[in-house]
Amino acid sequence: MLVVMSKNATEEQVNAVVNAIEARGYEARPIPGGDRVSIGILRNEGPVDPSPIQGMAGVKDLIPVTRPYKLVSREFKAEDTVIKVRDLEIGNGHLTIMAGPCAIESEIQAMTIAKHVKKAGAHIFRGGAFKPRTSPYSFQGLGEEGLKIMAKVREETGLAVITEVMDTENVDIVEEYVDIIQIGTRNMQNFSLLRRAGHAKKPVMLKRGMSATVEEWLMAAEYLMEAGNTDIILCERGVRTFVKHSRNTLDLSAIPVVLRESHLPIIVDPSHAAGFRDQVIPLSRAAVAASAHGLMVEVHHEPDKAMSDGSQSLYPEQFENLCRQVKAIFDITKNNF
Amino acid sequence: MLVVMSKNATEEQVNAVVNAIEARGYEARPIPGGDRVSIGILRNEGPVDPSPIQGMAGVKDLIPVTRPYKLVSREFKAEDTVIKVRDLEIGNGHLTIMAGPCAIESEIQAMTIAKHVKKAGAHIFRGGAFKPRTSPYSFQGLGEEGLKIMAKVREETGLAVITEVMDTENVDIVEEYVDIIQIGTRNMQNFSLLRRAGHAKKPVMLKRGMSATVEEWLMAAEYLMEAGNTDIILCERGVRTFVKHSRNTLDLSAIPVVLRESHLPIIVDPSHAAGFRDQVIPLSRAAVAASAHGLMVEVHHEPDKAMSDGSQSLYPEQFENLCRQVKAIFDITKNNF
Amino acid sequence: MLVVMSKNATEEQVNAVVNAIEARGYEARPIPGGDRVSIGILRNEGPVDPSPIQGMAGVKDLIPVTRPYKLVSREFKAEDTVIKVRDLEIGNGHLTIMAGPCAIESEIQAMTIAKHVKKAGAHIFRGGAFKPRTSPYSFQGLGEEGLKIMAKVREETGLAVITEVMDTENVDIVEEYVDIIQIGTRNMQNFSLLRRAGHAKKPVMLKRGMSATVEEWLMAAEYLMEAGNTDIILCERGVRTFVKHSRNTLDLSAIPVVLRESHLPIIVDPSHAAGFRDQVIPLSRAAVAASAHGLMVEVHHEPDKAMSDGSQSLYPEQFENLCRQVKAIFDITKNNF
Amino acid sequence: MLVVMSKNATEEQVNAVVNAIEARGYEARPIPGGDRVSIGILRNEGPVDPSPIQGMAGVKDLIPVTRPYKLVSREFKAEDTVIKVRDLEIGNGHLTIMAGPCAIESEIQAMTIAKHVKKAGAHIFRGGAFKPRTSPYSFQGLGEEGLKIMAKVREETGLAVITEVMDTENVDIVEEYVDIIQIGTRNMQNFSLLRRAGHAKKPVMLKRGMSATVEEWLMAAEYLMEAGNTDIILCERGVRTFVKHSRNTLDLSAIPVVLRESHLPIIVDPSHAAGFRDQVIPLSRAAVAASAHGLMVEVHHEPDKAMSDGSQSLYPEQFENLCRQVKAIFDITKNNF
Repeated sequence: MLVVMSKNATEEQVNAVVNAIEARGYEARPIPGGDRVSIGILRNEGPVDPSPIQGMAGVKDLIPVTRPYKLVSREFKAEDTVIKVRDLEIGNGHLTIMAGPCAIESEIQAMTIAKHVKKAGAHIFRGGAFKPRTSPYSFQGLGEEGLKIMAKVREETGLAVITEVMDTENVDIVEEYVDIIQIGTRNMQNFSLLRRAGHAKKPVMLKRGMSATVEEWLMAAEYLMEAGNTDIILCERGVRTFVKHSRNTLDLSAIPVVLRESHLPIIVDPSHAAGFRDQVIPLSRAAVAASAHGLMVEVHHEPDKAMSDGSQSLYPEQFENLCRQVKAIFDITKNNF
Repeated sequence: MLVVMSKNATEEQVNAVVNAIEARGYEARPIPGGDRVSIGILRNEGPVDPSPIQGMAGVKDLIPVTRPYKLVSREFKAEDTVIKVRDLEIGNGHLTIMAGPCAIESEIQAMTIAKHVKKAGAHIFRGGAFKPRTSPYSFQGLGEEGLKIMAKVREETGLAVITEVMDTENVDIVEEYVDIIQIGTRNMQNFSLLRRAGHAKKPVMLKRGMSATVEEWLMAAEYLMEAGNTDIILCERGVRTFVKHSRNTLDLSAIPVVLRESHLPIIVDPSHAAGFRDQVIPLSRAAVAASAHGLMVEVHHEPDKAMSDGSQSLYPEQFENLCRQVKAIFDITKNNF
Repeated sequence: MLVVMSKNATEEQVNAVVNAIEARGYEARPIPGGDRVSIGILRNEGPVDPSPIQGMAGVKDLIPVTRPYKLVSREFKAEDTVIKVRDLEIGNGHLTIMAGPCAIESEIQAMTIAKHVKKAGAHIFRGGAFKPRTSPYSFQGLGEEGLKIMAKVREETGLAVITEVMDTENVDIVEEYVDIIQIGTRNMQNFSLLRRAGHAKKPVMLKRGMSATVEEWLMAAEYLMEAGNTDIILCERGVRTFVKHSRNTLDLSAIPVVLRESHLPIIVDPSHAAGFRDQVIPLSRAAVAASAHGLMVEVHHEPDKAMSDGSQSLYPEQFENLCRQVKAIFDITKNNF
Repeated sequence: MLVVMSKNATEEQVNAVVNAIEARGYEARPIPGGDRVSIGILRNEGPVDPSPIQGMAGVKDLIPVTRPYKLVSREFKAEDTVIKVRDLEIGNGHLTIMAGPCAIESEIQAMTIAKHVKKAGAHIFRGGAFKPRTSPYSFQGLGEEGLKIMAKVREETGLAVITEVMDTENVDIVEEYVDIIQIGTRNMQNFSLLRRAGHAKKPVMLKRGMSATVEEWLMAAEYLMEAGNTDIILCERGVRTFVKHSRNTLDLSAIPVVLRESHLPIIVDPSHAAGFRDQVIPLSRAAVAASAHGLMVEVHHEPDKAMSDGSQSLYPEQFENLCRQVKAIFDITKNNF
């Protein structure tokens, strides 16, 4: 933390800030500049809470110097985390494709789609049992019934399965049925849920909040790691901007930033970012070209009849085409980042 | 919902869309235009899910015409909702001021601040017992101990009290101790929590999500009302934008929009929007001038020592000054919206 | 400028950065921290260009410490700039109201509206002669004919007049006819135009760019001052955000920030920020309550027939009401910032 | 345009709107719905100006149905525009790579970089002679001297050359020296400049404004086409969002949207979007994977010494690597969009 004093700050004001810093057990190091003094705060273990100093007389600015996250940081653990799920490895050197419908609607629907995506080359089957819906009047998912269907899909196809959990009450049951627990964009800062999922025995995929900075996202992952869960997959799914031609704006620059800052794998969900089917294939290719470790894509054999998000779901043949393309792009990309 | 067809859509494509609409029990009304056909969807009870039609051949755009919310809408209930909390009325014609520290730190801290804000003219005492913190390493609040302190504050000062609840597990206990339950910005779309709070016997103050549209915010309030709770206060607290000189950008245009669209009262939290003390007073005045029904302001007698958000907390004498100004502005404003 | 080195930066890397800084004539001051070194850059006259250092080995971050602007800064000139236009003073202690139609359409239209706004209490008549329009097919303004009408309005009503200039070619003619030259939001970083207007003999009102930071806005004002024009009025007119219920989101926190950072007066244009008539009055009151030095408001006696922006123009009686309210709010506010 | 009336709109109000529409020469078609009336506006040649109707009694919303652009629209011209520049073709089926320094600094610098990028596979040499700089104290470019250097580069290397023009005064001279005229992000809505460039005899590359919607961007291109210039290349260069880890957020979903809406070629500038060298290669690959027709990339042989934007400039060997990768990705992508 660097405290920048006003040009006309008095010596007393500088001293008061120095004392306030030292009273908190840190070291204060004044740096006299050309026309103003700055004061470095040193010997802090973690990030310094700026609040008490921000309002002091003569203080112009407070500039954070170190990152607030620790366990998720590449400075803490230099080598890439590779997560094992059944016989899969997710992360560095692997391209992992998760696909399936937005919501599990019935066994026949789930099984039909699962067979399609497996044949096309997907590794993990996705599907919602508990659906976070903007409207209380929309279809909210099949609940445990949906989880049972996912378990059957795994049994029959051999695909690993992932689903979203929306509250602490349902973590137990979700953990029992699926291989990866997803925390959705609206719950990225549901800290009670993060703490509970941090005690889960299954890997967690943490979607970026709709307006979260990468720092806040990594801090949410820090909650999971601090509670004991080290198997975390980050998932970029678009952020909210003024742009209206897609549902959200996919922030692919987050990929190189996460790869530099953290050791955790990062995948991309182009379906929710786009919101429109015709954007999903180009954005999927782009995500892999930008060095993502994988994709999560919505696929439906009858999108016109889907109970949610049909307009962004790919037809099975489109998904097959997508898999072929992204695998070729991954081969070009992986040795060159 | 209006379906806009492409210029070169065929008659078959138009008919297919008409059939798809009618298959869902709605009425389809084709509107031949100068160079393209649009199709109106009528006789729908609630909003129409656009997904199945969006992907059909020949469809260019889908344009929502009606609002998705119902119970919170002024079309559903024309007169303003005024909420009674102890001897207070919140809403139309009343200016309600909530004030207190970010977090309850001790009985002596809470009581000291409560007496200050009461004297200055506040009606409700705010304070956090469960704190949603970006970092797992930050102070997380005193929990039930904090709630007990709030109850004592009420007993001693006569002020009503409000605090945030972060998860369904704690709704029972929060409901027991306080007069208004707050749902924070990070939980605006925590639908499990909304449902549980919809069954609470206390009014709920629902903060706008950091990147929520007014429509999504009203839909979150719809979850509460649909579950049975009709005493809802909306709280604008700033949205995330590219602007970095304040923590968030206060969206005061949301006030006239909410007043037109809904019958619910709306207050403003300038402290979290600003993040810096010197913006809080001008933004408070602005909020009241823009016809807000109240304010929630952070006040601390020793902000330098506050355990969270000290830099945005007002000194008691600043808060006194603020109360005097906003009351005068309210008198000018209230008869003129 | 503060250079933050990586935790694992070598001594050679630190030395290379120190040398690079000193090669540019600055002083480099290494600050060894708990687990990393930072290097302060001192003795720089103006802001330091970060580019050459940003890419050097071992460099993690570059943190600007000083502001890039100089002449517009309150550190350069502590007392408020008050601008004289005819018999008016704009800035500290004065509330200046500019009002009129979006576009000058005819002498009779301009004169009718001017008389209305004068009677209601406006000080300056606004009106567009050269209109920046998103579409090449929209009405582009009357050009010099419009300027002549404005001059007649001034002659007949005694109101000062302001109009927008869109290119360097027309600065001469605009300067001849009007009292204040406006530079619009789309031209805030039209540097050729800024340089030319910096040589004008009339005050310039500089609107904030639709996605400009306050720093970029002040830098644009710096272009004007650097070229010799010290009579600059800043005008906040809303920024582009994800919010869609208003045309732009008015950023009122920019007012206290500008008042702290700069000595220049700042006014607010709520009409363009809102885009809808029913938001203009509450936002006008809010702007004055937030300590703006004035307002620019669109008024039309027949908004249904206006050639542009009719939907955001107030009726004369609404404007009268607005003037009465904002003057009362200004009296409450001005001694209390 | 669709006019949505309030639920409680009276028959008189509906009739007044119908009359207002017909008074403008359009056809009004009321569409009685379940609980409200909508009114379609038909027989309009171009887009309808919503202003006069927006404020009428009983009107709840105005919903645009048709696009405001015409000449740039794929509905107007179905086949892709392919632009010929010397012996190059830009657009459908071709991948065009533009590369060079941010600013032309000297003949030796320009020539050195040009030879590097030509060898790596670039087709067009970029370089700034007139530089739009946020600060009046930054290097502003060599002016005509820079243009002469670019002409020499073309002569010696055979590369076509592109540079930015900042004002109408310099269009003549720029047109004389270079092959493609660039209009920068800050001038996207400098309508005087657009009109002048619309009369140029050279192709124009139009960068997207920092907070422009695709619709506004296409309308800016419409200004160029309406003035007579049909050779327009669109260039996506990132938009301003809350994200701070990159200078801007590259909006790759704009590519499929532009390809669907317009016949014009679209390329991507990842250097300005990123602002940091280590993001440029992944974003370049992503842009081509998302079906861009080309790239504009900053390259410098000594970025530490660059006079502007050194931190985002690639080293020649990085650029070589980039060219190899994007060509392979283009081959995978081009037949599959």
